[in-house]
Amino acid sequence: MLVGDSHTMPLFGKRCAASLKKASYPLAQWKFRAGEASKDLKTLGRLYDTLAKEGMERSSFLAALGGGVVGDMVGFAAATYMRGIAFVQVPTTLLAQVDSSVGGKTAVNLIAGKNLVGAFYQPKCVLCDVDVLKTLPTRQLRCGLSEVIKYGIILDADFFARLEKQVDSIMACDSKVMAQVVKRCCELKALVTGEDERESGRRAILNFGHTLAHSIEKEYGYGKLTHGEAVAVGQLIACRLSEVLLGFPRNETERVFELFRCVKLPTYVTAQDTAKMIDLLIKTTHHDKKAQGGEPLFVLADRIGECRFGCKVPESLLRTVLKEFVKQGKK
Amino acid sequence: MLVGDSHTMPLFGKRCAASLKKASYPLAQWKFRAGEASKDLKTLGRLYDTLAKEGMERSSFLAALGGGVVGDMVGFAAATYMRGIAFVQVPTTLLAQVDSSVGGKTAVNLIAGKNLVGAFYQPKCVLCDVDVLKTLPTRQLRCGLSEVIKYGIILDADFFARLEKQVDSIMACDSKVMAQVVKRCCELKALVTGEDERESGRRAILNFGHTLAHSIEKEYGYGKLTHGEAVAVGQLIACRLSEVLLGFPRNETERVFELFRCVKLPTYVTAQDTAKMIDLLIKTTHHDKKAQGGEPLFVLADRIGECRFGCKVPESLLRTVLKEFVKQGKK
Repeated sequence: MLVGDSHTMPLFGKRCAASLKKASYPLAQWKFRAGEASKDLKTLGRLYDTLAKEGMERSSFLAALGGGVVGDMVGFAAATYMRGIAFVQVPTTLLAQVDSSVGGKTAVNLIAGKNLVGAFYQPKCVLCDVDVLKTLPTRQLRCGLSEVIKYGIILDADFFARLEKQVDSIMACDSKVMAQVVKRCCELKALVTGEDERESGRRAILNFGHTLAHSIEKEYGYGKLTHGEAVAVGQLIACRLSEVLLGFPRNETERVFELFRCVKLPTYVTAQDTAKMIDLLIKTTHHDKKAQGGEPLFVLADRIGECRFGCKVPESLLRTVLKEFVKQGKK
Repeated sequence: MLVGDSHTMPLFGKRCAASLKKASYPLAQWKFRAGEASKDLKTLGRLYDTLAKEGMERSSFLAALGGGVVGDMVGFAAATYMRGIAFVQVPTTLLAQVDSSVGGKTAVNLIAGKNLVGAFYQPKCVLCDVDVLKTLPTRQLRCGLSEVIKYGIILDADFFARLEKQVDSIMACDSKVMAQVVKRCCELKALVTGEDERESGRRAILNFGHTLAHSIEKEYGYGKLTHGEAVAVGQLIACRLSEVLLGFPRNETERVFELFRCVKLPTYVTAQDTAKMIDLLIKTTHHDKKAQGGEPLFVLADRIGECRFGCKVPESLLRTVLKEFVKQGKK
């Protein structure tokens, strides 16, 4: 069964269906309303009922056509329908292609929080067609680029250098360049998640820039800043913290700044009362991780291409660094 | 969090809670209405919400206090809340102690069918207190004994012989004898499911007697005959088929008959129109497995203690054998 949402099915549904039919797969199709609000138990229940109604069996497979919401929910349905059937990811956003479609995290939201119900369940394959990226709004493309750049910083200095050189082709969504970029990101993510599927250790490095980003998203309201925008600012903060704590070279932080500027990702946030916002961000950061006992742990980098997880950051240092990244202005 | 149903929590909830508190676990508790009807997505959603509300974290664990319905649903919640937290089975029926609590199958029902949504997810441990069995209605105890006897037939001739000798102590729920019986059944089930967790091969032997039992349950209406009663008749049919196809000794079928009689499990079913009922049972049996392509496959025994799966049974033979087990009478 091909499952997409109200954005992706009108755009790509027919082509996917035709391709699957050509390969002689008997095909059912289903779509749901696009958006994070659909990633809930109610829509999931409707998906299960449709799978049963369409006679899906243990040997059937699902194809998830869409961004992270579609991949997360269809993946979870595949993980649990008849105790697990096969599924294929067909991600249609850059963020989904380089991040959420690889690694096997599937989930739906509860009212109490995002991704609270889910499973680790690997797709049989991830099919990325970079030409679909040309249909994306520029802001959503940038959101994905924030994660692309992250892979360079945490794992691959050569890849980072290539991004610097090819930034114009990337912004123009050149098919050949994007195919290489997406491929490398998938390889890097598969490498990390293959070593640590269940996130007991090194998989944490994928959260570089995300600790602060989650706080920024929360304080600025989800939707105002995209996830990728918050992650860009979070990564710059992590670079500065890394300078002080791990001797991350100052000129490399400048290279990260410059690359974010080139792709037009923000390099700071604004607030009318900067001191109050800094307090809020620190509080949220501490609260967020309280569950795992005590202070928040950061992913920091030694240099571009090398990083470590589980780093403690003194609150006073965090406060000093945040002063650079929370500027006076309209929120 | 200790989770049980409206039967088990009033009976055993306080003792379990006291025991967990004594071991210094901070404890939350929740219960839902007893019965198969509760094993649905709606009750599951309420359980998830309660887990979140009570602040359950990745390091928390669930204890499932009850029969198969509680174990299946709490197990599935544990498998999926935060992508998997630990859980412990505390089965309170004989059937759950010797069967559903071991092996890692968890599930909830859809309207379209039983156990259509689930996961293979192992409990950290299975805690069986055989004294709770003394609170069971005799009919429910017998239902479990049907599966107990099955383990003897398919895997362990010595165990079968011990059951024959100890049948009076078993019917009286003697604690020492029951502890040995339950222990051996759990060992045998763990052995089989450990080799083949995802039911791709040998785990199928656990379905001895179940192919016909499912048809019997369906045709006689769920609830009229218990699952265990249908499985008893199904096992006798499988023994007779085994005589013809695998040379199962006729006197061993007699021993199985005798043991079922001793524990007061039925050895046949009745119908007003026996020919019609036999037709229905054959049809249902074929339909049931159609999904896996073609004719139904049976688990048959070579002798008590040895069996094989994937056996084809000619329809004419099945019809002949069914004539012995569908007797004229009130349905």
